[in-house]
Amino acid sequence: MKIRVVNPNTTSSMTASIERCARAVAAPGTVVEAVTNTMGPASIESHYDDALAVPGLLAEIVRGEAEGADGYVIACFGDPGLYAARELARGPVLGIAEAAMHTAGFLGRGFSVVTTLGRTAGHAMDLAERYGMRHSCLGVHGTDIPVLELDDPKVRGVIAEACRSAVAADGSDAIVLGCAGMADLCDYLTTEVGVPVVDGVGAATVMVQGLLTLGLRKSGRGEFAAPPPKQYTGLLAGFTR
Amino acid sequence: MKIRVVNPNTTSSMTASIERCARAVAAPGTVVEAVTNTMGPASIESHYDDALAVPGLLAEIVRGEAEGADGYVIACFGDPGLYAARELARGPVLGIAEAAMHTAGFLGRGFSVVTTLGRTAGHAMDLAERYGMRHSCLGVHGTDIPVLELDDPKVRGVIAEACRSAVAADGSDAIVLGCAGMADLCDYLTTEVGVPVVDGVGAATVMVQGLLTLGLRKSGRGEFAAPPPKQYTGLLAGFTR
Amino acid sequence: MKIRVVNPNTTSSMTASIERCARAVAAPGTVVEAVTNTMGPASIESHYDDALAVPGLLAEIVRGEAEGADGYVIACFGDPGLYAARELARGPVLGIAEAAMHTAGFLGRGFSVVTTLGRTAGHAMDLAERYGMRHSCLGVHGTDIPVLELDDPKVRGVIAEACRSAVAADGSDAIVLGCAGMADLCDYLTTEVGVPVVDGVGAATVMVQGLLTLGLRKSGRGEFAAPPPKQYTGLLAGFTR
Amino acid sequence: MKIRVVNPNTTSSMTASIERCARAVAAPGTVVEAVTNTMGPASIESHYDDALAVPGLLAEIVRGEAEGADGYVIACFGDPGLYAARELARGPVLGIAEAAMHTAGFLGRGFSVVTTLGRTAGHAMDLAERYGMRHSCLGVHGTDIPVLELDDPKVRGVIAEACRSAVAADGSDAIVLGCAGMADLCDYLTTEVGVPVVDGVGAATVMVQGLLTLGLRKSGRGEFAAPPPKQYTGLLAGFTR
Amino acid sequence: MKIRVVNPNTTSSMTASIERCARAVAAPGTVVEAVTNTMGPASIESHYDDALAVPGLLAEIVRGEAEGADGYVIACFGDPGLYAARELARGPVLGIAEAAMHTAGFLGRGFSVVTTLGRTAGHAMDLAERYGMRHSCLGVHGTDIPVLELDDPKVRGVIAEACRSAVAADGSDAIVLGCAGMADLCDYLTTEVGVPVVDGVGAATVMVQGLLTLGLRKSGRGEFAAPPPKQYTGLLAGFTR
Amino acid sequence: MKIRVVNPNTTSSMTASIERCARAVAAPGTVVEAVTNTMGPASIESHYDDALAVPGLLAEIVRGEAEGADGYVIACFGDPGLYAARELARGPVLGIAEAAMHTAGFLGRGFSVVTTLGRTAGHAMDLAERYGMRHSCLGVHGTDIPVLELDDPKVRGVIAEACRSAVAADGSDAIVLGCAGMADLCDYLTTEVGVPVVDGVGAATVMVQGLLTLGLRKSGRGEFAAPPPKQYTGLLAGFTR
Repeated sequence: MKIRVVNPNTTSSMTASIERCARAVAAPGTVVEAVTNTMGPASIESHYDDALAVPGLLAEIVRGEAEGADGYVIACFGDPGLYAARELARGPVLGIAEAAMHTAGFLGRGFSVVTTLGRTAGHAMDLAERYGMRHSCLGVHGTDIPVLELDDPKVRGVIAEACRSAVAADGSDAIVLGCAGMADLCDYLTTEVGVPVVDGVGAATVMVQGLLTLGLRKSGRGEFAAPPPKQYTGLLAGFTR
Repeated sequence: MKIRVVNPNTTSSMTASIERCARAVAAPGTVVEAVTNTMGPASIESHYDDALAVPGLLAEIVRGEAEGADGYVIACFGDPGLYAARELARGPVLGIAEAAMHTAGFLGRGFSVVTTLGRTAGHAMDLAERYGMRHSCLGVHGTDIPVLELDDPKVRGVIAEACRSAVAADGSDAIVLGCAGMADLCDYLTTEVGVPVVDGVGAATVMVQGLLTLGLRKSGRGEFAAPPPKQYTGLLAGFTR
Repeated sequence: MKIRVVNPNTTSSMTASIERCARAVAAPGTVVEAVTNTMGPASIESHYDDALAVPGLLAEIVRGEAEGADGYVIACFGDPGLYAARELARGPVLGIAEAAMHTAGFLGRGFSVVTTLGRTAGHAMDLAERYGMRHSCLGVHGTDIPVLELDDPKVRGVIAEACRSAVAADGSDAIVLGCAGMADLCDYLTTEVGVPVVDGVGAATVMVQGLLTLGLRKSGRGEFAAPPPKQYTGLLAGFTR
Repeated sequence: MKIRVVNPNTTSSMTASIERCARAVAAPGTVVEAVTNTMGPASIESHYDDALAVPGLLAEIVRGEAEGADGYVIACFGDPGLYAARELARGPVLGIAEAAMHTAGFLGRGFSVVTTLGRTAGHAMDLAERYGMRHSCLGVHGTDIPVLELDDPKVRGVIAEACRSAVAADGSDAIVLGCAGMADLCDYLTTEVGVPVVDGVGAATVMVQGLLTLGLRKSGRGEFAAPPPKQYTGLLAGFTR
Repeated sequence: MKIRVVNPNTTSSMTASIERCARAVAAPGTVVEAVTNTMGPASIESHYDDALAVPGLLAEIVRGEAEGADGYVIACFGDPGLYAARELARGPVLGIAEAAMHTAGFLGRGFSVVTTLGRTAGHAMDLAERYGMRHSCLGVHGTDIPVLELDDPKVRGVIAEACRSAVAADGSDAIVLGCAGMADLCDYLTTEVGVPVVDGVGAATVMVQGLLTLGLRKSGRGEFAAPPPKQYTGLLAGFTR
Repeated sequence: MKIRVVNPNTTSSMTASIERCARAVAAPGTVVEAVTNTMGPASIESHYDDALAVPGLLAEIVRGEAEGADGYVIACFGDPGLYAARELARGPVLGIAEAAMHTAGFLGRGFSVVTTLGRTAGHAMDLAERYGMRHSCLGVHGTDIPVLELDDPKVRGVIAEACRSAVAADGSDAIVLGCAGMADLCDYLTTEVGVPVVDGVGAATVMVQGLLTLGLRKSGRGEFAAPPPKQYTGLLAGFTR
């Protein structure tokens, strides 16, 4: 069983950390490979970044299909390109926001999301709405720590404090980490905050693995069937199918 | 890792089938044991049956906690006693409707539920609403086959036909099986119907296993903390905590 | 016209107070009898208590049907077993949360619920959602006063203060009392708080009486028809129908 | 206890029938008087009719307050002027759509409305939404029988047939009559259709009576406090407060 | 192209200001005329005022149709009589709350409404719900400045401060002015508050003009077809159609 | 006033038709220029096409900003890249689905969308949900005519028939055209179908023009502020800001 975890940004140190977190929860027989987007932004902190990360991400899905990947995780909390990826793949594709929100929903009545820039909060709420988890998502809290500074040891305490404040303000039962770059803080925060802390990278990995075990893949009918062949031009001519 | 699958009705042949389906999807190191409720209805086909299945089901959770179970599956599509069980258990507890609906949500835009008696459709819709999956649950279709007749080979074709009709009427991408007693029809129906078919017993088993791998358990704060100690009297005196 | 008010907990002093409040609002010709559950918890303060109160409560509905009761009130704010009771009864059955929330909806734009333990707030919100009153239910406020201490004169002031705070915080037009044990505080709180205060015991009694006057009873079709006959085993063998 | 039932249209034969139906369900001590609007349309079959019925209706509320009425029923299924009437009255004011929809919600999972002109269906759905009953209102079915022809004996069968079709098409548990002019068909239709049939005139009368028994009135704070004094000019100068 | 802007209250100085604001945004070829209601309240600050403003407002629509108006703006933030006006007119009719809320929805994720009396906030929320803009309407803030005191220069600063507070409290991206009487404060407030400020009079004028340019008018089918002819009596006899 | 209409696909004949329709509704002083995406798919008929159209579309917004465009229309019914474009532009940006749905909402109670491939219906419903127009969007109807065959005269009749069927099936008051390629069928279909037909290209053009007249632009705070500067690599290196 081969699961490919795609980091939609181009920062390979972040890919390494994501891969570590995904492998830590995979079953013995499961091969987990993380790949880095080769065209797009260094980090995703706006709708603009999100949109431009998608072509490279989709190229990784196409490559994964050619190389025999069985399922995919999109390792950015904005779940960029999720539906397009689902069209391309034969097997399951999950975004980490999707996986984390559904997972947190099993743990109690409501969760808080703690994330990087406050400007992404609206998009996180849109995703909660789309996935049916709006009633459980009690708040989205920006820390205004840029994505690429998350591995600075000094920010750990700031994030822990943001989690504690969120739990108090929202009366929430769990924390959802709002960035793939926070994945390796999960254990630390669980200890510090005292409620379950859900990292979407791990959550999506076990869920994709579970879907593969169950023999389930995206439905091939209608909306998520392979996209119709089409001519592409300009810089994206290589995306012609 | 020990997962206990509780059959909330008292029919042990159904428990055996449920156990078979749960074990088929568990990882090598995971111990799956299915247990039969010892007090309650032979099958669950009404709100009355559902309500009266709960005390025995909760007794199995209490026994599981004493015997070191790490997580639980409630193997009836009405998800009876789910919140009470979540209070009692230290680890994760999932209902099969909950697990199946969230799982089906990953496969496409919408699913149809095919179930036993039509009178249970309202309750299934209530669950979809509660779990945030109402927008994906495009229809609930009763076949009016009683639960205890599901193992009659003659009904397989009727259920397959109901699945096909549901897919056509609802324009759905997947089928969710609306009864634990249908779990072992999952492969047959997948072949017959041509869309992914989700059995909640399998889905809940891999999800509980996933939550345990992630180190996640129900939040211990507030609503789902252990219930306050209380005197019970009459037939249920033994439930005093 | 005979209305049976069932106290789902086993504390008979609370039944006596409930009966007093129900009788105070019944019309001259209406016979109101309150009965105490004979198997279950001394008070209902968790999902566990709620679930285990139901079998005894349903036994009272069965007994009521045999003894000619025309309608029923379930006198616990969690409305335990409401749908199962509705299957069993020929006439109307109302829960006190259901009755109180709909009643409060007639009095203004929004109401606040003031209740006992904060851990029950999520369930109250679920009920508001189920009954269509979520838009009017502006907040649920726990006082963390246990149910069985509500008759302590010292708590009256605490509850009044919680009501005043709730009105100010939520901008609400009315208070809904979140426990049958608060029924006899209704007049006191109305005076103290200065907005209408709705007690569900009284509200449900006049509404059941009203439904009987109108000749209305639950629909006998489908979901709420009498439950199909079924074998029960173990401690609950006596519930076989 | 004096309840005033206001017929918002100017057709006094309809007022007489409404009064008969309201009195039939009132308790012995309750005085029920129905009054006819003195300025407005002969029947209400459009937003235009609805809007123009309101000034006369409000004049009846003002007169009722002067004459000591304790509560009011607005006897038109569009519930015209309900919120304005609630500002003017000290006691409770209910519309018949509001009362009928909440009442039908107690009887099963869903109801169908059967009404006069199809063009009013949108407004009925808006009311269901406003009252929180949208989830229970499974359909609104016009018969295109004008309001003032409802007392023609020949239309009874047409309405019964529309009710039967609605129950079949919507899978509903009850019928709500969508016009005050249908009130006296309630018994006939109950017999013909085989599910509970709810007439809002009766339902509102017992509910207002119930609210008065409970000592409840509209909240005097904010939105529903008496309207601020204001100069009126032109034809409506007499409405100056 | 002739657009008639109806001021539903009887205060002609307010009409003059409304006309100025509407003309300021109309295209060269567009004729904008504002008219004052000749029967009704001096200002609209309650459901009572709102209801009683409607007959005179509808008389202006009838007159406008006779005089060749192509479209209409109802210049009161409660959008009184909107649906009835839509029945009467052949061309488009927009309310200023409707126009302002949809317009503000194009500018960012959410807006705050700043209005006159706090008691009207519930009605504004109802309108947001009706127009589908509830998710964008983050708050409605009363200033308790009466409508007819809005032209007092001293209140400008109070309103600006309320706008700034609303933006901070709601985290909103724009302000919607909750009264036609605030239209000429729009530029001042835009400068003071630092977020886009939407005045419904201007917004509705350009939208009606846009609809006319597109050749769009209300649908003539069903609900918004011309109201059926009907006898009116009493003070409103003149409204007979 | 300069409005740039961006055709997100690479088919210039479609751009020409879009430009014609946009210019037909612009005011005399308004300059409307349509531009064709230079990198991306020949037409947009899947999530994959939609995602890959976005980078080129955003490049046009960047170019428009440099060239002094005041506002933008995104002329594809999937509204691709709308939020990212809103971050980049100083002035207003509207999608044609967004504009058409809000416009249709002013014309009656509900509309039907008639579109090209049925597989895009889910996305159209998602947009209706996002814009708050889900309650008005009564159905989305695919014709399975590919986008690039819309200018074949033979399909006009098929589309007209689909519109008529949609109106009958949904009971809708208006039609919304679900593809920019249908813009020039608007007049033909209006005549054929007998209800208002809304073309998003025209609707968005007059709305952007209206917003500019009102002096309104997107809010510069938070979510829609200019995206933070960021390094882009690979094929998209040129998108670095």
